[in-house]
Amino acid sequence: MRFVIPTVLLAALSLGGLVAGPGCQTEPPAGVIAPAVYADIAERLRADGLRSEQAFTFLTDLTRTAGPRLSGSPVAAAAVEHMRRVMESLGFETWLEPTMVQHWVRGEEEAAIVDGPGKADSSLTICALGGSVPTPAAGLTAPVVEVASFEDLERLGSAVSGTIVFFNRPMDRARIEPFAAYGESVIFRTEGATRAARQGAVAALVRSVTPRIDAFPHTGLVVYDPQFPKIPAAAVSTIDAEMLSARIKTEPALRIRLRLGCDTLEPVLSANVIGQIRGTTKPEEIVLLGGHLDSWDLAVGAHDDGAGCVQAVEALRLIREAGLKPRRTIRAVMFMNEEFGSSGGRDYAAEPRRNNEKHIVAMESDRGGFLPLVFAVGGSAETAKKFSGVGGLLQGLGLSGIRAGGGGGSDIGAIVQKGAIPMGFIPASQTYFDFHHSALDTLDKVHPRELELGAIVLALMAYISSEEGI
Amino acid sequence: MRFVIPTVLLAALSLGGLVAGPGCQTEPPAGVIAPAVYADIAERLRADGLRSEQAFTFLTDLTRTAGPRLSGSPVAAAAVEHMRRVMESLGFETWLEPTMVQHWVRGEEEAAIVDGPGKADSSLTICALGGSVPTPAAGLTAPVVEVASFEDLERLGSAVSGTIVFFNRPMDRARIEPFAAYGESVIFRTEGATRAARQGAVAALVRSVTPRIDAFPHTGLVVYDPQFPKIPAAAVSTIDAEMLSARIKTEPALRIRLRLGCDTLEPVLSANVIGQIRGTTKPEEIVLLGGHLDSWDLAVGAHDDGAGCVQAVEALRLIREAGLKPRRTIRAVMFMNEEFGSSGGRDYAAEPRRNNEKHIVAMESDRGGFLPLVFAVGGSAETAKKFSGVGGLLQGLGLSGIRAGGGGGSDIGAIVQKGAIPMGFIPASQTYFDFHHSALDTLDKVHPRELELGAIVLALMAYISSEEGI
Repeated sequence: MRFVIPTVLLAALSLGGLVAGPGCQTEPPAGVIAPAVYADIAERLRADGLRSEQAFTFLTDLTRTAGPRLSGSPVAAAAVEHMRRVMESLGFETWLEPTMVQHWVRGEEEAAIVDGPGKADSSLTICALGGSVPTPAAGLTAPVVEVASFEDLERLGSAVSGTIVFFNRPMDRARIEPFAAYGESVIFRTEGATRAARQGAVAALVRSVTPRIDAFPHTGLVVYDPQFPKIPAAAVSTIDAEMLSARIKTEPALRIRLRLGCDTLEPVLSANVIGQIRGTTKPEEIVLLGGHLDSWDLAVGAHDDGAGCVQAVEALRLIREAGLKPRRTIRAVMFMNEEFGSSGGRDYAAEPRRNNEKHIVAMESDRGGFLPLVFAVGGSAETAKKFSGVGGLLQGLGLSGIRAGGGGGSDIGAIVQKGAIPMGFIPASQTYFDFHHSALDTLDKVHPRELELGAIVLALMAYISSEEGI
Repeated sequence: MRFVIPTVLLAALSLGGLVAGPGCQTEPPAGVIAPAVYADIAERLRADGLRSEQAFTFLTDLTRTAGPRLSGSPVAAAAVEHMRRVMESLGFETWLEPTMVQHWVRGEEEAAIVDGPGKADSSLTICALGGSVPTPAAGLTAPVVEVASFEDLERLGSAVSGTIVFFNRPMDRARIEPFAAYGESVIFRTEGATRAARQGAVAALVRSVTPRIDAFPHTGLVVYDPQFPKIPAAAVSTIDAEMLSARIKTEPALRIRLRLGCDTLEPVLSANVIGQIRGTTKPEEIVLLGGHLDSWDLAVGAHDDGAGCVQAVEALRLIREAGLKPRRTIRAVMFMNEEFGSSGGRDYAAEPRRNNEKHIVAMESDRGGFLPLVFAVGGSAETAKKFSGVGGLLQGLGLSGIRAGGGGGSDIGAIVQKGAIPMGFIPASQTYFDFHHSALDTLDKVHPRELELGAIVLALMAYISSEEGI
């Protein structure tokens, strides 16, 4: 009742064979990759990676050299130069591809409940949403209206005119998959300001999109619809969202003062950072490993997405250290400007050199540097079936195996449109939104072994893809 | 190519269907539990658990009320009373079963490299191993001999007579499964002192069994063989183990001063703490959920094994809150004295009331309160096949499914000997030995969602076991 696993891996097997409800045949059908030839390679990648924990060293260096890497900022430029130098010093074919990025700056910001004459204001812990317009320099003060949905908002009609709309929709903790709960709640962050402006609101305040009740505001992009006025938008910590909500119930006339000093400056020339091991027989066919080099400005972006960047670099290093000479080119791309709309990923795909290349596989790591649980293979069912042959090798790395479907990501979206098959490991996600886009996304939240396991999985699957093709 | 999963759960499905290399049939064979009847129950347990995160509240209360719960200590006695009260207040049938435990106390302790006349000693961060005999009150000073294996030690013969033997065997980080690496290294902690004493050594110093290089010594039991003299034994932090090893290479005559004030007092009457929901139709058949209530004394034992205790209590609470009336009895047992040899587990199994009971299933959670990855079903292949039918329900809770084999644990060993089938979730383990048996095993290392998911899985599988029998 166990999956077929090469004998050499049985000793290393962590999770053991899963028992399928239905019975399984014992012989892999034709068209499925035979794992035996890769078993020894998997072993070498694993041993080198777990002994060295080099991905964490790369991440330490990146976050110390170039901490909060907001697109367009001098720190983001330093990150580009740092990663270029790291990949060059590792001996990879390394270059930059220019991409224009927007340049938003935070400035000073504050918010408070205005408690009226003779009383001190009660400050609220907030941060401007990325891309927000500023308030007037002196701030703005307005009554606040709380809503938990766009339906709530629409029902209020013009009653929200002149107010600050407070979107207070908690993430649904009951969902097993935090990314699904995030998807339900993040629309208030991205679209709330526009929806509120349509009804005459003067600003939007959004409950931070995190399942935890804490004092840290979580930022992220606000998307304005050019048809409507752009109004200032900020996130409020969940503790203060709860407090504000409680006070509104007893003080419906409560007013908030909001001051955001943020600004959008002229666009800046930045770059995607690229390094590769050239393929020996089909160099024009590319297996891409990607992460995004920019981060939010409230922390050093250790999980989002320093982790994905260093995993791609470490995967290349592991392949090189194992003495492997891949048939097809394996390329690490550190995309710029994911957080302001993935323009780096689109520019990468549109770059004229792509015309002489064929991307067969694209793997993006942008769900944090957590323990890899399963490996997703997108594209057709045939492709997933083909790669299912190496599920046992992945079990030897602690994953449960190969999953059909998924594997996409925002930066590789454009190259997947051009035919690359999306693949990638799905890491543990239960803790991700505790840190996401907040001051908590720091190096100490990343575990060296868990981070490294992601790099090892990428190295193995990139190498197998480069040998087997699609 | 996906496993059969009830439609109701597809939306909640986290990992998706794994692709088996070989093709799978689409109809579950006879003798396999039909999941449909439990799908709604799984949903309720999940929603209540993840919303409330009550296991973490139980753990917070336990670790605050009764922190380091060393067997035989007043704090362990307070933990017994606390958990009894918690279960009673939840309305479970609650009682204590007495068990005698040994009572070891740490006392003052220190170690240093003796740097000779006119120089300050270089202190070493150590802790006595549990059960160690003390040194003379003034301490002992002796030359040190480093070994990395018992073979090394044997080759040295009587050359180690009068010395402190320093066992410096790092955990093998290259292994994917930290528990396997722990197993290889922990024998120097358990048996090192006896092996060294056999060759005339006066004390044993053991590199802490952790994969990290840090300043925290990790304790754990030392096992003496009564045939040989009992010599004092202590663990040294990995940073100091590396430093000591480097110095020994250039200063082979180096001496260490060791002073351990530990002592073994008279045995103490303690108790296993038991709470249960009585079965409606077969109350004498028991599904046991267990953890151990004692911990080491260097921290509050949040992962080891406060987590397992509160998960058992929370599983009972979830079952009760869901309005379920199990056919067979579901019982939570907080075993005493696992760390000094699992005597609580043995006394539980030997207790005369067991004669009127039949334990059909025993689940122990003692691998930390981490994310559950897979559910192990011990016993025969038939049993695993029977439970494979609910693999899809477990996928809805984020696990990869059912694994045949495993599920045992030290506390349930004795009751498994008497016929109970061992089962249990296998949690993520990559970070466990960072904290294990050290001052780092604190509440902040436990994540409320990950802890709760373990409790939810236990609740679901205990309820299914109680309904289906074995």
